[in-house]
Amino acid sequence: MNPILIALICGVLGLVVASFMAAYVLKQDQGSEKIREISAAIKEGALAFLGREYKILGIFVIAVAIILGVLPALGWRVSMAFVFGAICSGLAGYIGMSIAIRTNGRTAAAVQKSLNQGLRVSFRSGAVMGMCVVGIGIIGLSILYFIFHSDPNFIFIIPGFGVGASSVAIFARVGGGIYTKAADTGADIVGKVEKGIPEDDPRNAAVIADFVGDNVGDVAGMGADLFESYVDSIIATMTLGMIATFSISLDKSLVPDMATAWFLPMMVAAGGIIASIIGIFLVRVGEKPEMGALLNALRRGTFSSSVLTAGFAFLAVYFLKADIGIFWAILVGLIAGVLIGESANYFTSYAYKPTLNIAESSQTGGATLITRGFANGLMSTIPPIVLVVIAIMVAYHFADIYGVAIAGIGMLSTLGIQDATDAYGPVADNAGGIVEMSDLPPEIRERTDALDSLGNTTAATGKGFAIGAAGLTALALLLSYTQAVGIDVSQFNLLDPRVISGIFLGAMLPAVFCAMTLNAVGKTSFSIINEVRRQFREIKGLMEGTAKPEYGKCVAICTSAAIKQMLAPGLITILSPVIVGFLLGPLALAGFLTGAITTGFILAVTFANAGGSWDNAKKWIETGAYGGKGSDAHKAAVIGDTVGDPMKDTSGPSLNIMIKLMSIIALVLAPVLAGFPGLI
Amino acid sequence: MNPILIALICGVLGLVVASFMAAYVLKQDQGSEKIREISAAIKEGALAFLGREYKILGIFVIAVAIILGVLPALGWRVSMAFVFGAICSGLAGYIGMSIAIRTNGRTAAAVQKSLNQGLRVSFRSGAVMGMCVVGIGIIGLSILYFIFHSDPNFIFIIPGFGVGASSVAIFARVGGGIYTKAADTGADIVGKVEKGIPEDDPRNAAVIADFVGDNVGDVAGMGADLFESYVDSIIATMTLGMIATFSISLDKSLVPDMATAWFLPMMVAAGGIIASIIGIFLVRVGEKPEMGALLNALRRGTFSSSVLTAGFAFLAVYFLKADIGIFWAILVGLIAGVLIGESANYFTSYAYKPTLNIAESSQTGGATLITRGFANGLMSTIPPIVLVVIAIMVAYHFADIYGVAIAGIGMLSTLGIQDATDAYGPVADNAGGIVEMSDLPPEIRERTDALDSLGNTTAATGKGFAIGAAGLTALALLLSYTQAVGIDVSQFNLLDPRVISGIFLGAMLPAVFCAMTLNAVGKTSFSIINEVRRQFREIKGLMEGTAKPEYGKCVAICTSAAIKQMLAPGLITILSPVIVGFLLGPLALAGFLTGAITTGFILAVTFANAGGSWDNAKKWIETGAYGGKGSDAHKAAVIGDTVGDPMKDTSGPSLNIMIKLMSIIALVLAPVLAGFPGLI
Repeated sequence: MNPILIALICGVLGLVVASFMAAYVLKQDQGSEKIREISAAIKEGALAFLGREYKILGIFVIAVAIILGVLPALGWRVSMAFVFGAICSGLAGYIGMSIAIRTNGRTAAAVQKSLNQGLRVSFRSGAVMGMCVVGIGIIGLSILYFIFHSDPNFIFIIPGFGVGASSVAIFARVGGGIYTKAADTGADIVGKVEKGIPEDDPRNAAVIADFVGDNVGDVAGMGADLFESYVDSIIATMTLGMIATFSISLDKSLVPDMATAWFLPMMVAAGGIIASIIGIFLVRVGEKPEMGALLNALRRGTFSSSVLTAGFAFLAVYFLKADIGIFWAILVGLIAGVLIGESANYFTSYAYKPTLNIAESSQTGGATLITRGFANGLMSTIPPIVLVVIAIMVAYHFADIYGVAIAGIGMLSTLGIQDATDAYGPVADNAGGIVEMSDLPPEIRERTDALDSLGNTTAATGKGFAIGAAGLTALALLLSYTQAVGIDVSQFNLLDPRVISGIFLGAMLPAVFCAMTLNAVGKTSFSIINEVRRQFREIKGLMEGTAKPEYGKCVAICTSAAIKQMLAPGLITILSPVIVGFLLGPLALAGFLTGAITTGFILAVTFANAGGSWDNAKKWIETGAYGGKGSDAHKAAVIGDTVGDPMKDTSGPSLNIMIKLMSIIALVLAPVLAGFPGLI
Repeated sequence: MNPILIALICGVLGLVVASFMAAYVLKQDQGSEKIREISAAIKEGALAFLGREYKILGIFVIAVAIILGVLPALGWRVSMAFVFGAICSGLAGYIGMSIAIRTNGRTAAAVQKSLNQGLRVSFRSGAVMGMCVVGIGIIGLSILYFIFHSDPNFIFIIPGFGVGASSVAIFARVGGGIYTKAADTGADIVGKVEKGIPEDDPRNAAVIADFVGDNVGDVAGMGADLFESYVDSIIATMTLGMIATFSISLDKSLVPDMATAWFLPMMVAAGGIIASIIGIFLVRVGEKPEMGALLNALRRGTFSSSVLTAGFAFLAVYFLKADIGIFWAILVGLIAGVLIGESANYFTSYAYKPTLNIAESSQTGGATLITRGFANGLMSTIPPIVLVVIAIMVAYHFADIYGVAIAGIGMLSTLGIQDATDAYGPVADNAGGIVEMSDLPPEIRERTDALDSLGNTTAATGKGFAIGAAGLTALALLLSYTQAVGIDVSQFNLLDPRVISGIFLGAMLPAVFCAMTLNAVGKTSFSIINEVRRQFREIKGLMEGTAKPEYGKCVAICTSAAIKQMLAPGLITILSPVIVGFLLGPLALAGFLTGAITTGFILAVTFANAGGSWDNAKKWIETGAYGGKGSDAHKAAVIGDTVGDPMKDTSGPSLNIMIKLMSIIALVLAPVLAGFPGLI
């Protein structure tokens, strides 16, 4: 049987599991009248935002498709692959979010029965997302294979799919990220800091916008993000494998022919899907609502998936008669990914010293807490960098540069279950908010808090893992680009002014990108703050609870602002490699990607872990340390959390997409840029 | 006449001017009994710190000298050059600080006569430092030339001088930076934030430590820093020039022989000294105390120096019969340096939009202000990066990689006057503090505030300029290293796993270095805060002004902590290139330096400008905006300023030294590493 057919079947199996999970979730009780009312408001806001976002993205996709189709070196095939990739990415985000917005209320209802039931409902909603991402990814790539695999330009068509997926992802991640963090920080600053009312209090006008944000940012945005990570890592390996079969500078013995170049990454990914499905079914807890038990349940799932994936990868390598070195490369990627995730957990969880130190510094005020947290983020770059370097060296040793690429696949092969544990978090978070707004008894809120807190831990692990994989994937794409564009080994060296200039310019871009996204969140939350303040001032009886705030106003502000402000960072990411490539030539572009990948990696890790540790330092104080909620220490910690929010949920994760998107654009442009000297 | 003799004479002339300025300053009235008492306390604290710091550095220098002397590939000559460089660097810092601590009080006295007299005294104190740095630098290098120029290993001896200078500089900058910012933020957090007393209030126990810190950090630390920038840029150009005369891959027509390789950079630098002396004498204002007039006076000096330097550089190129392309490279460096300085001013002065936007965001609290300022810092990387890239491309176009090195000298050639305008700032700042403590009338404090505010502007410009020059110098050193170690052009490419691994590891190091220095400041200021709080609690009558605080306790805490905590970041900087070089080989080390230079550059610019803009946003609010002093907006701005302090005055400037130090260590190790495969 054609191995791609096996992969296709595994992808379909993933979608079947997703449907089963979705059916289970939708069968659940929708909860009280109040819960249903809030759920309906969230659903309306989220769908309205996604509708407007996808309309803009539709225009963008059509425009780019026309440009790609018109360029003689690329043509309609690349254009079609691009559109297909964009649609698949949008679809993965849409389906995941559709289920999430229907599960928030159901989880709030389920958790009234038991914690276990709450976990089951919310985790299965996350599993829908996880399975959709990997299922659609594998199916999309398989379809491309069957349509185009006899085309002589096949190698340049496939990356088009990745560009489509990544383009949608960057806008979805940035737009959703701006929405969710502007609403969140706006609600927190007026509600928690100024008015002293609890989080998710119904009197806060921004509270519904905050819930909507969790869905459009942390679910739909993240879905598109993980989808592109997944397909880009597979595409990078395929391309490099195909290039290896005809390149003079690469080792041909590893990948004997074009078919193996395709089959191997697809089979490893397919094995990962089966492993993830098994892992998902292993996630179950007893009736005792213990935090440790919950975490163990999730860990059991992800750990089993990792071990199974390693086994499947070995089988794939064995049956495809590939070099055994490739298996070691996959294994080192898989292990490095797990360890990077654990290191993120160490630097952000209040079970460990770094976050406890940050919490301690809250005693001397917000400034010292900010400095400590930021330093922690910077320090946390050590394990991921060292692990990535070890992975690179080992993978190279066993399987040349092809090993680096396939190590990236190894890292991402358990994405199905990783994404499930990630996407479950915002559902639990929202369920907690709905419980708060519905005046349910505090012990119910405690249960959702336990679920939410678990979600924060898995989110930190997931982020670390996503960054590590992004670094390896971007590197593999860069390597493919240098091969595809025909850069001579002797040219790509530091004595060339174009390479140096490219590196400097590339290193600058992630910084500018972060500045733009941070400012976008800042500006939008400024508007939200003023709106919430206005409502407290002008609506009589709001603070006393006798009048209701106008939630729709904040939803409308966030929607418009996020849509408007996602454009500039997205377009800069897409245009920079094009501009650098045409202006300074392909050599400068290679330098540019090198600079962007390294700085982007450092900033992404720093932002994610600084943000995560501030968040958890605050949570630690809320457990009663240093005076607990309402103390000066807590106020200082809220400042840290607010600073960290856009860093960890808007700028940081978008950087992952950014470095891959720029690299894959370079790869697609390779045939156009080959031999082009640059305009300057 | 031997051109080096001319350079030596210019250097001596610089020291003559320094003595003249010093004599003028020391002749001035020392002020009232109260002023003399405070000055004496500052002097005592500063000299005690420097004494302890130099003792540790002495041990370090002797240890390294022995190691260098024992290594067969290096030997006693390199060891001697190293010790000599270390002594020269320490001397420049010591002399500058000795004058500064004697001028603080004299400026406080002079400003009582007139603003103009205050500017004259404080600026001439800065000029002593400026002239000492360039004078000692040129004289030191000339002496080395006369002793060693006929030695066949001459090319490897000279960088030893740079390593000595840079090693002292990194410890002095980090140690001084920890001292000054821990004292400053500690004093501010308890005094301004908690107790609501003014800055520099005599009731604050940390106030003398704060003054001492200004001298040991902003004067002595900066002097050592600028000394190493200056000599490293000259050494980088010389080495590259000398390599060009025998390298096969470099263009020989630019630098025909070893002598020209030496003469040209020395002559350009010597011309810069003369230009700076003329510029310094052009700094004078009328009696009307206008901020604009003050700024214009300084600008007239620096601008005239730049124009004159360009003229002298042309003459040097002409008379040494070097390629005219070299002149264009020097010119583009000079212009890029000035523009980078101006861009720093734009991003940090409250005359412009970025800082005003940050001030505006104070209305929604500390968190939004932090985010806005940090985004501003990240955004401010655009002009320096773009200008450095343009300088690289133009310099390369006209004079190959030698052009890049000499563009760095062009950027730094006006260092004499730049350093004078920089070193005058802390003197004016301290004078203001002494005025505050001596109960002098508010109009006197207004005058010192005007001088201080001017100092902040010149400091921002100077920092931008220092970072730009550091980038170019480090790059030139890296290029020299690749040549000296004999890296084949075709090897140093991204397909090599060692290069990639080196880049990733190198990119990590500046982040870790920043984390360590930020934490060091955080920890020390934590101790200071607790001590100041304790004194307010335990010393009866302190708040009422009837009792005096124990200033010495805070001075002692800062001294011990700064000495202790400067060691780890300094040693890591020194050891990393050694470890990477021996463990992963010379190729990985080249990648390592590339990664460190780019990330270091980005972080240095971000930290300097974010810090500067928070500082000035606070100053803008203090002029009355958004409620002025004591308002909630002001409290938010104080948080921003406190976060920015260690970023802009400890971590940021130390990064400049760090990237150069690691590069020059690599250059010195080149003969040892050449042909070495790496242990792994």
